[in-house]
Amino acid sequence: MQGTPEVAVLRLGHRPGRDERTTTHVGLTARALGADSVVLAKAGASSRDTIEDITDRFGGPFTVETTDDPRRYVRDWDGPIVHLTMYGLPIQDAEAEIRDAIGMEDNLEGGDGSELLVIVGAEKVPFEVYEEADFNVAVTNQPHSEIASLAVFLDRLFQGSELDREWTDAENVVVPQEEGKRVEES
Amino acid sequence: MQGTPEVAVLRLGHRPGRDERTTTHVGLTARALGADSVVLAKAGASSRDTIEDITDRFGGPFTVETTDDPRRYVRDWDGPIVHLTMYGLPIQDAEAEIRDAIGMEDNLEGGDGSELLVIVGAEKVPFEVYEEADFNVAVTNQPHSEIASLAVFLDRLFQGSELDREWTDAENVVVPQEEGKRVEES
Repeated sequence: MQGTPEVAVLRLGHRPGRDERTTTHVGLTARALGADSVVLAKAGASSRDTIEDITDRFGGPFTVETTDDPRRYVRDWDGPIVHLTMYGLPIQDAEAEIRDAIGMEDNLEGGDGSELLVIVGAEKVPFEVYEEADFNVAVTNQPHSEIASLAVFLDRLFQGSELDREWTDAENVVVPQEEGKRVEES
Repeated sequence: MQGTPEVAVLRLGHRPGRDERTTTHVGLTARALGADSVVLAKAGASSRDTIEDITDRFGGPFTVETTDDPRRYVRDWDGPIVHLTMYGLPIQDAEAEIRDAIGMEDNLEGGDGSELLVIVGAEKVPFEVYEEADFNVAVTNQPHSEIASLAVFLDRLFQGSELDREWTDAENVVVPQEEGKRVEES
């Protein structure tokens, strides 16, 4: 998101046939709530079309990448890594330190340019990921949804500023309504 | 959640075979993030077992209800109704008024006992729902995920207090860890 360090979301453990919709939800949530890109395993590439179609229609910038080797992708990442897991430390205790690690805490506008990787898993996540992560973070220590965890994480990371972000090259713009639907085409 | 007005989440528009996992994610997110119950259309009742199983293992209170007639359920609801939709008014503008409508704004501990119904749809939501809702609320005016919207909505409604809630009758308790997994059985 403009004015903040780059945030990429890596979707791990996608199971073809079973995880298409949740992987698509992960990608669309990443886009809507301020991340700059989502990285899918090759097997999850069928979600790519949906996410790119939404970006074409409702604006960007937002990119979808794929990787043949998600574990190597994690090992090769240079910046700080957050892994969202119900076994981790509470988000409410970790969020300030994470902003600090990417240079956001003192200056929401700028940041020092450290890129953040946020990992969300489907089911079992290899132990290596817990080790590679700088922050294993829990949005409650309850089992629920990686989509919900990602949403709360991003809203807290950006402290709500993502809700006011602007979109470029949107064909469709939704105009907020008390009741009903209004979409303007540009 | 104890000490706050009751919040029920109604899942509309469940399509059997297609929406099982997302409906389960909606239910588990409602439970984890402070709602008191989820209401499923009969067709979505297969998610019920998963949600109740999690409640048995990780604690409650949390209830799963089903309804034959979700539209009548909405019409018959006595308290305030929030409908989460990408076409609605921004959550950041609406949240304080919603807390006020259920008596939470001045007194996070108490509330005046008005129960809140939060409606999340799958795909097309009938126009009647927009009319019945007291608040049509958007977590961004972008298409993403009803699971993500519900998560951000609940975290903002409860102002993070749901992250510290206590659970009763849990068989399994996750102990937050910097790395790895620790689950205690009681």
